[in-house]
Amino acid sequence: MAFADWADARGRMLLDPTVVNLNTGSAGPLPRSTFERVTDLRTRLAGAPMDFLLRELPPLLWRARAHLAGFLGGEPHRLALTTNVTGAVNLVASSLRLSEPGEILLTDHEYTSMRWCWERMAQRQGLTIRTFRVPTMPADPGEIVDAAVAAMGPRTRLLSFSHVLATTGLVLPARELCEQARRRGIVTVVDGAHAPAFLDLNLADIPCDFYAGSGHKWLLAPTGVGFLHIGPGQEDSLEPAQVSWAYRPPALSPPDEPDQFGSTPRLRRLECEGTRDLCPWLAVPESIDFQARLGHDRIRLRRRELADHARQRLTGWQGLEPATPESPDLSGGMVAFRLPATTNADELRQGLWRRFRIETAVADRPEGPLLRISANFYTTEVEIEYLADALKELAAG
Amino acid sequence: MAFADWADARGRMLLDPTVVNLNTGSAGPLPRSTFERVTDLRTRLAGAPMDFLLRELPPLLWRARAHLAGFLGGEPHRLALTTNVTGAVNLVASSLRLSEPGEILLTDHEYTSMRWCWERMAQRQGLTIRTFRVPTMPADPGEIVDAAVAAMGPRTRLLSFSHVLATTGLVLPARELCEQARRRGIVTVVDGAHAPAFLDLNLADIPCDFYAGSGHKWLLAPTGVGFLHIGPGQEDSLEPAQVSWAYRPPALSPPDEPDQFGSTPRLRRLECEGTRDLCPWLAVPESIDFQARLGHDRIRLRRRELADHARQRLTGWQGLEPATPESPDLSGGMVAFRLPATTNADELRQGLWRRFRIETAVADRPEGPLLRISANFYTTEVEIEYLADALKELAAG
Repeated sequence: MAFADWADARGRMLLDPTVVNLNTGSAGPLPRSTFERVTDLRTRLAGAPMDFLLRELPPLLWRARAHLAGFLGGEPHRLALTTNVTGAVNLVASSLRLSEPGEILLTDHEYTSMRWCWERMAQRQGLTIRTFRVPTMPADPGEIVDAAVAAMGPRTRLLSFSHVLATTGLVLPARELCEQARRRGIVTVVDGAHAPAFLDLNLADIPCDFYAGSGHKWLLAPTGVGFLHIGPGQEDSLEPAQVSWAYRPPALSPPDEPDQFGSTPRLRRLECEGTRDLCPWLAVPESIDFQARLGHDRIRLRRRELADHARQRLTGWQGLEPATPESPDLSGGMVAFRLPATTNADELRQGLWRRFRIETAVADRPEGPLLRISANFYTTEVEIEYLADALKELAAG
Repeated sequence: MAFADWADARGRMLLDPTVVNLNTGSAGPLPRSTFERVTDLRTRLAGAPMDFLLRELPPLLWRARAHLAGFLGGEPHRLALTTNVTGAVNLVASSLRLSEPGEILLTDHEYTSMRWCWERMAQRQGLTIRTFRVPTMPADPGEIVDAAVAAMGPRTRLLSFSHVLATTGLVLPARELCEQARRRGIVTVVDGAHAPAFLDLNLADIPCDFYAGSGHKWLLAPTGVGFLHIGPGQEDSLEPAQVSWAYRPPALSPPDEPDQFGSTPRLRRLECEGTRDLCPWLAVPESIDFQARLGHDRIRLRRRELADHARQRLTGWQGLEPATPESPDLSGGMVAFRLPATTNADELRQGLWRRFRIETAVADRPEGPLLRISANFYTTEVEIEYLADALKELAAG
């Protein structure tokens, strides 16, 4: 890699040295180079706003879009940029028309706010919601496909699932799930909140209708980056959340050709929301390139090494039991543990923060409280040891 | 004022020295202190994202909301923060239910994208759009009220008008227009894109249902600041554009009391859109305070002085005729001029930029092309002279 070692790479991150960040899964810190890039762009926006917005931004925006599309294995003219995955999923749920009667199929591990989002869509369109149980410790991905297929029926109109479960880090077999749905005429919306840079994502391999993602987690892009990749046949299915300048593109402008704003007329209609700060979008290439200099595959191997270390160190420790399978097909840099049933999730999270400055996710789930650790290249074995010690001290009261 | 003179104040702005910025009306440059504040906040967000979002942001957000509400003469628990005025108006237009049949009444000078926004609402709800002609050079504000009242009828359900016309800078008598509408049971939505810090705004004096504004123009706040002030009786009228974490507030939480996130449950339901960069909202107090140190009233007087200078210098120059009345009741720091009918607006705007680095607004209107000059405290008489010379040179070809 371009840097001496992982310690050198860590030194190039804007990491608060007083915080033990085991929560890239919620929000990642920024490489200094990305922060410098986005701050430079914002300096231009602040000092010469109209020149920046009208003339400098468009070519940078198209370049960023093409760079991100290439990284994701998608196509730039299908890649609508959004603020985050929430915005991307809402874009679909608030405007796609499904035929009713029918149902929307979800896993039982979808992010709560996204489940509400589908519930609103169902309510507005006279549909019902059906939830199927994901096998969370499967021996192989086929078990997950079987569970999903068993839940699909003639009334299923849309399937939405997380590519990587936010709860445990379990990786779902997106390609197979979408293939099965497509065979049955079911529209698919993949919630890839955690997927970009966490997985070696290749959208060309996933026959979904819509793929949504966030940039502020594993991609290490500035807060304010998300996307919706629109699959073939769905080009005309969505309406923008907001009516803005791009709502009525000039007549005769080719809908999928790059326009003078760094979008295409079709994409811009969805993504334009008045004057706002698009600098985070423009800085995405720097985050991709920073990780490329470290080696995306090497980062993934390092995360796995750290996740395995956490698994070995914490399994059986203070009553913890692994909740994420080990197989590289089924997991990556996030590993979750079941906590003793008596654990108060909120108290534990607060205790880890207040007494130890450890930032990690602890959540209540119907099957019991879960501790989720995110390991990234800037995580150290020492930090995992420190977490183990902290858990012991907190258990001792 | 706290600074030596206007030149000193100008020196405290992040102004590209190579650009003649006569376009605060489109987007204002930032005070250095605001840029430093928002960059400091973003450094925290980048280095300790979850600590910042969960713990540091909420009190800062409430403080910013209260500060802005105080500045606007509104109430913090009625002030939903948005990205810009477009987002604020869309929030109303995409979810307020009007009784049909009926019509939406607009002036003939509304911003095109906002007109489209109301057209989509009308189409979705089976309403029609009616437009009335604003007297653009009235002798007094009463002429505007008369024109609006003449257009109100038993079918009018909603009136939306710009507090300050983006085309010419004409100030509309918002209080009287809203009073007349209210008497007739007509819902009012004021598009105050230009109003904050341009006018001595006091929302308590304007009996409207909704007041929307942007912060990136005259308020000199970072790009990404807007608001919707929700009038009494309309608290339950709106639905969020996006379903997010705040969509279903915890049962029994008082809807209008400050919550642990720096909002109220009711406001947060409308303004929460997943993980995004709220630092621009948090930096609003610095922009208000910066201008307070100069004196908000003194800034307005200085703008008027400069606008008057432009009016005197350019009236009759190269065929220009004033399109904005002089009276302080009817105008402020923006002054527009009718251009000769043969002027190509786009060419003139480009020519001013390419040959002279002058940033100003030139637009085509049904009544002919218009040149709009925004004068702010950092504008100089020399810059207005330079514009006059540039217009002459461009006219000479």
